[in-house]
Amino acid sequence: MDAIRWQGNSLALLDQTRLPVEEVWNTYTDYRKVADAIRRLVVRGAPAIGVAAAYALCLAAMEYKGQNPEEFQKSMAAASAELAASRPTAVNLFWALDRMGLALGAAGCGAEALPILIREAEAIHREDVAMNRAIGAAGAAIVPHGARILTHCNAGAIATGGYGTALGVVRSAFTQGKVEMVYCDETRPLLQGARLTAWELVKDGIPATLITDNMAASLMAQGKIDLVLLGCDRMAANGDFANKIGTYGVAVLAHYHGIPFYSVLPSSTIDLSIPDGSHIPIEQREASEVTHFAGVRTAPEGVGVYNPAFDVTPHRLLTGIITEKGVIHPPFAEQLAERFG
Amino acid sequence: MDAIRWQGNSLALLDQTRLPVEEVWNTYTDYRKVADAIRRLVVRGAPAIGVAAAYALCLAAMEYKGQNPEEFQKSMAAASAELAASRPTAVNLFWALDRMGLALGAAGCGAEALPILIREAEAIHREDVAMNRAIGAAGAAIVPHGARILTHCNAGAIATGGYGTALGVVRSAFTQGKVEMVYCDETRPLLQGARLTAWELVKDGIPATLITDNMAASLMAQGKIDLVLLGCDRMAANGDFANKIGTYGVAVLAHYHGIPFYSVLPSSTIDLSIPDGSHIPIEQREASEVTHFAGVRTAPEGVGVYNPAFDVTPHRLLTGIITEKGVIHPPFAEQLAERFG
Repeated sequence: MDAIRWQGNSLALLDQTRLPVEEVWNTYTDYRKVADAIRRLVVRGAPAIGVAAAYALCLAAMEYKGQNPEEFQKSMAAASAELAASRPTAVNLFWALDRMGLALGAAGCGAEALPILIREAEAIHREDVAMNRAIGAAGAAIVPHGARILTHCNAGAIATGGYGTALGVVRSAFTQGKVEMVYCDETRPLLQGARLTAWELVKDGIPATLITDNMAASLMAQGKIDLVLLGCDRMAANGDFANKIGTYGVAVLAHYHGIPFYSVLPSSTIDLSIPDGSHIPIEQREASEVTHFAGVRTAPEGVGVYNPAFDVTPHRLLTGIITEKGVIHPPFAEQLAERFG
Repeated sequence: MDAIRWQGNSLALLDQTRLPVEEVWNTYTDYRKVADAIRRLVVRGAPAIGVAAAYALCLAAMEYKGQNPEEFQKSMAAASAELAASRPTAVNLFWALDRMGLALGAAGCGAEALPILIREAEAIHREDVAMNRAIGAAGAAIVPHGARILTHCNAGAIATGGYGTALGVVRSAFTQGKVEMVYCDETRPLLQGARLTAWELVKDGIPATLITDNMAASLMAQGKIDLVLLGCDRMAANGDFANKIGTYGVAVLAHYHGIPFYSVLPSSTIDLSIPDGSHIPIEQREASEVTHFAGVRTAPEGVGVYNPAFDVTPHRLLTGIITEKGVIHPPFAEQLAERFG
């Protein structure tokens, strides 16, 4: 299962805004339209937008038909800046663009640069899948037999290059016969849990139960959740992390009920340049995501709306961090520096 | 603002399923259709369904055209049983039906019984509004100046005979100039916070900001919530209470952040016959409430769904209980017995 395919000279993205009703692939040859697809959540999930942005830079290089290396480098810098402006929170976007910039180096125009860029984008993509597989293998070890797992938003195959981070652990543990049930927070306002996570699990034959976000606490109180696994959009040097809005609430609830709570992420999501979560920019999105559904108004005109796409969970609420280099336990700052510094 | 009107020989209900887009009043002359309206949430909110059920029994009495007192009593008992079967959790429904039954006593057929029943239903309605006014006055005292209040679901004028319980306190405190902002949890799956609470607040010119349920924790962490006020569907003798799904989660979050958390209710919502919350039956509702919105599928076919309409919050998470007899603090069991025993 995947949502990003490089087609030699175009990029295909599974339109995640139309799931689970329709599986539609869009083809892109213009990097600006990929930036727009990232903004509109056609492609979403921190690792996936990194991969998509890398391929988008290949499209930008293909677009330049001139022979002026300086002009070419300028146009590539402009494309990179435009892609970087699409969404602010997930660090993988900036990480991938930086890595593509390093690979590009001082390479000349299209004919010289393009193969280098495509090779690098495909490496980013391939490595992301490999990291997810490693994450899955490492993470499965902490999943108990008969586990009833709560997840939030979608940290699945389609949020990454493939396989998934939190859902990669679920897939790996399921293969080992350990998963009894995955409870999916529907994840308002855009229902990534209902539309995407539940869809991935049903497709893979993994037992899945959908709940509204406000039902998780009640399940915890009834002793029906053994473990919380969810993704990450950016982790600071001390282990504080931004993830889909609602993650912080789930963390507090898990803490109160004594339930292990893990963030699952590849190293490309770690931002050691910021000391703690207060430095992570939080994207605010349009009010209409909350006041309307499928074109139907669900709130009165005149009401104010607060619609942050993410919240920040302090590291003290984390039981552990599952990465491609194994499971990390406190003290997180030391462990993160040691493995990823 | 109200949602229930007795029209002499028919009952008018504001159709709450169509708010906030349309304000449509339905007229009922058949008690069975009122039972259906309760089931379908045309009328909802613990006090409101008690009032509606009382009037529905008047419609049942009007329907009996015979002259056989025994047959009449039997038909009234059948109507009461049908109304009682509409929803299981809110105790006001059973309280109102019991009270109507006591008023009816051994009264003979329609002509004799009807005025008695109408008088009693109107008394239940009038007393509910009066209790809400008293609740508002008592509750405003605990609202600090400049309060930023979080609420969940709708415990407003349209959830009661009029004025509201939690929103009655908000209205009363707003009149005193104490309310800076009311944050409304949208309250999935049926969005009573977005559709009903926000609508009431905007209508009354009270500052309101809509959030998805999973944003409340983040607001609390930012120090933007001073107080939580919400309703109640049934409170046990020890202070444990059932309320709209998600209430328990809000209670845990408020506790973790040291934010005062109050349940607001009239005495008709207190059920001293049960010792604690484990005895409150929790209504499970249809999966389609979670998997569809406005006819649009938002989850894949084949996914399981858990959809309880309520959860139970243990009394230890309550700062206080706001009633028409004043604000109650722990120990709740003693205080509840003393004032309402």
